[in-house]
Amino acid sequence: MPSKRELPIGIFDSGLGGLTVLKELRRRLPNERFIYLGDTARTPYGSKSRETIQRYSLECARFLLGREIKLLVVACNTSSSLALSELTDVCPCPVIGTIEPAVAAAMANGGARRIGVIGTKGTIASSAYQTRLSDLISEVTIFAKACPLFVPLVEEGIYSGPIVDKIVEYYLSDFRSADLDALILGCTHYPLLSVAIRSYLGSKVSIVECSSAIAVQVSALLDSEELWSPSRPLPPDDERYFVTDDVSRFNYLASLFLERHVVEAVQVQTL
Amino acid sequence: MPSKRELPIGIFDSGLGGLTVLKELRRRLPNERFIYLGDTARTPYGSKSRETIQRYSLECARFLLGREIKLLVVACNTSSSLALSELTDVCPCPVIGTIEPAVAAAMANGGARRIGVIGTKGTIASSAYQTRLSDLISEVTIFAKACPLFVPLVEEGIYSGPIVDKIVEYYLSDFRSADLDALILGCTHYPLLSVAIRSYLGSKVSIVECSSAIAVQVSALLDSEELWSPSRPLPPDDERYFVTDDVSRFNYLASLFLERHVVEAVQVQTL
Repeated sequence: MPSKRELPIGIFDSGLGGLTVLKELRRRLPNERFIYLGDTARTPYGSKSRETIQRYSLECARFLLGREIKLLVVACNTSSSLALSELTDVCPCPVIGTIEPAVAAAMANGGARRIGVIGTKGTIASSAYQTRLSDLISEVTIFAKACPLFVPLVEEGIYSGPIVDKIVEYYLSDFRSADLDALILGCTHYPLLSVAIRSYLGSKVSIVECSSAIAVQVSALLDSEELWSPSRPLPPDDERYFVTDDVSRFNYLASLFLERHVVEAVQVQTL
Repeated sequence: MPSKRELPIGIFDSGLGGLTVLKELRRRLPNERFIYLGDTARTPYGSKSRETIQRYSLECARFLLGREIKLLVVACNTSSSLALSELTDVCPCPVIGTIEPAVAAAMANGGARRIGVIGTKGTIASSAYQTRLSDLISEVTIFAKACPLFVPLVEEGIYSGPIVDKIVEYYLSDFRSADLDALILGCTHYPLLSVAIRSYLGSKVSIVECSSAIAVQVSALLDSEELWSPSRPLPPDDERYFVTDDVSRFNYLASLFLERHVVEAVQVQTL
């Protein structure tokens, strides 16, 4: 029976965008083991209701908890925005979502007072980012915008060119004249559009990506809870992937997000 | 106990695009009653696997069959492409999908030999349209293309302007020089982009929309099976709407597709 420290870290996302988080965690925490669940049969979460997101998120968490994990990472911004307290209530292990790490990273960008946040309709409508930023930063001015076309763009493999430029302009024209200090990319897909976003907004705006922000907080939590894995796991024991739809699209999107093929490790799980 | 002819017609779609079909059915068949189910908690179907689409489609059909219907209309092109024979196997009533009606309408456009078809990844990859067109039209030349960004565009309420023009060009540039006789819009969302598509391809191309094609076949089937409703139903008994996610987005999208608000009649059904 493994000790608690030897258990894997569980990660779930509405689909495969959370693989950007896994990639960053793996880079920074090479001794850890990971289990990833992508709810590809019900993706996307971003345009669905609070009740449905909470139900789906709890089902994903229960699946990972059933395989024994020492820490749950909610890599989905929509789930983090709409279901984090429900997840924390049911999980016996620590839970880390996207909001706190991203807000901490925006604050670390010393003196940020004009902060933009973009995400799915669910994330932005929840005001989770806006509320936390207002709680923590006095005199903050927040610009928030849902950008529903960004995810399908990324999933279509379109990251640059005239279509991206027009859509970035469509969503972010108000942001361009807002003199932003920082912009939080509140969706795991959006980093793949960061070159186009940065080019449109200018290099003065600091771009905050959730994946590295989450890795920083996971690392801190492993320290404070003394949960570091004692030894480096060897493949294929270091990572396991589960998806709720079949694996055919997994490999294509995994190659975008993770920059490697992992189809042999993927199992289908009906929730 | 109502006679079979008095039973409603059941319609389901992965979401709310099928309301375009309901609208056309209601216009042409004013004596009929309708039950609509939109699987909004799991939408979209277009990028998911055959196995998942079949499972979802059978669950939708069983829900409608449980409420007694005389005819099942599969308003979703992806379900029609990937699950029609499975649906026909389990349904005691006649089942009408999108493929046969749309192909019949394209053929009615006398002499069409160069036919384009656009739809979701699932619809196009299934080759359901391509196979049926080849079966029925000798010497047909088929141009098929999946256009995954069209649905999110419509759901974002963007039907015209530079973003639409760029995306239409991105997907249909090969079609423009293909000297098409007809183009089948193999997705219930696409009619909302038909002005932009027609403008790009030119007025020589006959545009085939599934909704009117389905209404023609439903009408013929009510004739041949002697299933016409004997009397005109009165509201609210004429229509019932069910969605699997909550109703907040239903009203917005229903106003796009159906051109009226029906939220008071909507119930949530967890599948």
